[in-house]
Amino acid sequence: MSELTLTSLLLLFPLIFIVLTSAPPTIASEAATKGYSKSIPRFLGKFANPNRGKSFQYETRYFEQRLDHFSIADLPRFRQRYLISTRHWTGPDRMGPIFLYCGNEGDIEWFAANTGFVWDIAPRFGAMVLFPEHRYYGESMPYGSRDKAYANAASLSYLTAEQALADFAVLVTSLKRNLSAEGCPVVLFGGSYGGMLATWMRLKYPHIAIGALASSAPILQFEDIVPPETFYDIVSSSFKRESISCFDTIKKSWDVIISEGQKNDGLRQLTKAFRLCRDLKKTEDLSEWLDSAYSFLAMVNYPYPSDFLMPLPGHPIKEVCRKMDSCPEGTSVLERIFEGVSVYYNYTGKVECFQLDDDPHGMDGWNWQACTEMVMPMASSRESSMFPTYDYNYSSFQEGCWKDFSVKPRPTWITTEFGGHVRKHSL
Amino acid sequence: MSELTLTSLLLLFPLIFIVLTSAPPTIASEAATKGYSKSIPRFLGKFANPNRGKSFQYETRYFEQRLDHFSIADLPRFRQRYLISTRHWTGPDRMGPIFLYCGNEGDIEWFAANTGFVWDIAPRFGAMVLFPEHRYYGESMPYGSRDKAYANAASLSYLTAEQALADFAVLVTSLKRNLSAEGCPVVLFGGSYGGMLATWMRLKYPHIAIGALASSAPILQFEDIVPPETFYDIVSSSFKRESISCFDTIKKSWDVIISEGQKNDGLRQLTKAFRLCRDLKKTEDLSEWLDSAYSFLAMVNYPYPSDFLMPLPGHPIKEVCRKMDSCPEGTSVLERIFEGVSVYYNYTGKVECFQLDDDPHGMDGWNWQACTEMVMPMASSRESSMFPTYDYNYSSFQEGCWKDFSVKPRPTWITTEFGGHVRKHSL
Repeated sequence: MSELTLTSLLLLFPLIFIVLTSAPPTIASEAATKGYSKSIPRFLGKFANPNRGKSFQYETRYFEQRLDHFSIADLPRFRQRYLISTRHWTGPDRMGPIFLYCGNEGDIEWFAANTGFVWDIAPRFGAMVLFPEHRYYGESMPYGSRDKAYANAASLSYLTAEQALADFAVLVTSLKRNLSAEGCPVVLFGGSYGGMLATWMRLKYPHIAIGALASSAPILQFEDIVPPETFYDIVSSSFKRESISCFDTIKKSWDVIISEGQKNDGLRQLTKAFRLCRDLKKTEDLSEWLDSAYSFLAMVNYPYPSDFLMPLPGHPIKEVCRKMDSCPEGTSVLERIFEGVSVYYNYTGKVECFQLDDDPHGMDGWNWQACTEMVMPMASSRESSMFPTYDYNYSSFQEGCWKDFSVKPRPTWITTEFGGHVRKHSL
Repeated sequence: MSELTLTSLLLLFPLIFIVLTSAPPTIASEAATKGYSKSIPRFLGKFANPNRGKSFQYETRYFEQRLDHFSIADLPRFRQRYLISTRHWTGPDRMGPIFLYCGNEGDIEWFAANTGFVWDIAPRFGAMVLFPEHRYYGESMPYGSRDKAYANAASLSYLTAEQALADFAVLVTSLKRNLSAEGCPVVLFGGSYGGMLATWMRLKYPHIAIGALASSAPILQFEDIVPPETFYDIVSSSFKRESISCFDTIKKSWDVIISEGQKNDGLRQLTKAFRLCRDLKKTEDLSEWLDSAYSFLAMVNYPYPSDFLMPLPGHPIKEVCRKMDSCPEGTSVLERIFEGVSVYYNYTGKVECFQLDDDPHGMDGWNWQACTEMVMPMASSRESSMFPTYDYNYSSFQEGCWKDFSVKPRPTWITTEFGGHVRKHSL
């Protein structure tokens, strides 16, 4: 691959714009630890469903990996799943490149089905396509099963980004050796957390990868590198850009929900208005369900119809705002909100009642990562955000992590290991 | 620090030439596992003695480190020792640089006492000097004591280069933060294995270190990157360069030792000829003692008198060869050899009898590292080497490691993690 064609690849194809890292804020009056679950950036894993997206042709294989690459401990190995297609690969003699998608927090088949870009360009470059799965997700479970892998903090302790990067490095090095393809360049791809991995892998393994294309990778969302309000500000501006009245309606709605909920029979009225399957127990559950929708809508605000997280039309935020804004005059704030979020939760029109995600806790892989290494301060500003005001509170975050996982977060580790702060000195 | 001054630093000061990685070869007829202990590159650790070398002014401090940086396991922390001097440091406001010597396989005070270069140049650059100790060496013992740290393969399993690099990264990041010195550039230094660490740290932590000066760092001595004969060929040529007859005498001597040993009363004659303190049990012990001397002489073949491994004159190899060559005609090969190695083992003239190092096994930190990650193929060629011919035999190496440490070497790991092979493709 010549420098020219690689550069073309990096420059000519527009980046798919997925705004990243959803941490639904909560109202400021909540108890300390209460804020914790809402300040965990949820990312994508919980939607993982291999049947969503397109289907592409590949072979499924497995590779035996060490559980801990960086110590010599005699631990049980595990089988990492990877998807491979050599269909368009021009092979070692013609230095056919290897396109490696860095698997992130979910079933790898799901990411393969939703990263058409890699499949689309592979034929042009005569590239092999490789989708290795991230350890502790999908079928790539240490200790033989998800239950055992997720049993406790000790069994989960090898679920880290550095270990995942080493998995990718060992796998692709071994694969290249077996195919006598040591000379074939590797180009990394990744979106969201997978984009963070692609970036970090290019940084840490420059001898393995000649380039990385990271999409919506919040590698600067750590410590004090960017303001903690960044994420919600971007999501909010995606709505404001479509319609100021839409932005205003959403911004107003949180107080309306609280005051409705405080009325006599208020929770029942809200249950009815939002067609919930079960009786609403507290207004926070509804608020969280709503702001999840807005955050995820921004993440998948593609210009074409898609089915990554949910079945959605092209430009879904535009569609949400169109729905809210086109209600006849006199329509209440909550009715407009319901019309709007129905685009996200019920675009097919087949849903009869809505199931709130009112237990976001539990042994979820991404939550573990967020509670250990991926400590991303999240806040929602009073001014520029349409979400409820929410201040970042590290102590309550830490308490929550201790409660859920008996683990202490390492808030300064990622920047130590991977950098991120701009150096203040000049060379 | 301007680019100009940094470049000056890297270019103007001559590198101290220490040829590196000693793996005394053994005669080919030995049993398989026998060859193992001789194919472990011994490096420097066994000489560690803080009282050797010069004394410089510094403060001794301790820093609490995680035992495993790359997993979340709840392991006991340990205290890492580091030496620090801010005497000449111009401080954060003037962006005073931090000179960090990457501690290697021994007591850090010993390296500090023998790395005058760093101390010499620090005042010119207004630099802070930092000597962090490598985990599992000197006072930086996990689990509270050397005995506990070296108890078994499990307790030793965090003795890896990657963990040591992360120790350095965490320490210097924390130190800079405490001193509000985030903007001060860090320059790495290291010799031998410490030079490998400096190189790898610059590669893996480019956001932490702007440069590295690695001296005699055999980062290419892995897998098939360089021929396994490289080390002994370089050592041999250091002798040949001084005197061909000296080279020839040494090359001849191995067979003479074997045939002497096979004679009636031969071992006792050898014991006497070499003034050994205890009766020689087999000729291999003597051969190994001799080739250790030659290898270490090449490592410390400084142009000035020094006391790093042993008290030695300047240009010690020249001196060894002068001694051998200046014996009167008719002097036997073994008498010449004895005259020569006495420069190394007895330059002060105070040694009454010599103690062979006939048990190189045991729970030595470097041996552990050589048996796990630092798998450096070593051989001695029939032609260009003055050492006994020795072929690299991975199986016997592996067997030996299993016997000594119950551990399986990872011969391809270092090149996967740190690279080393030249890429065959062009960009």
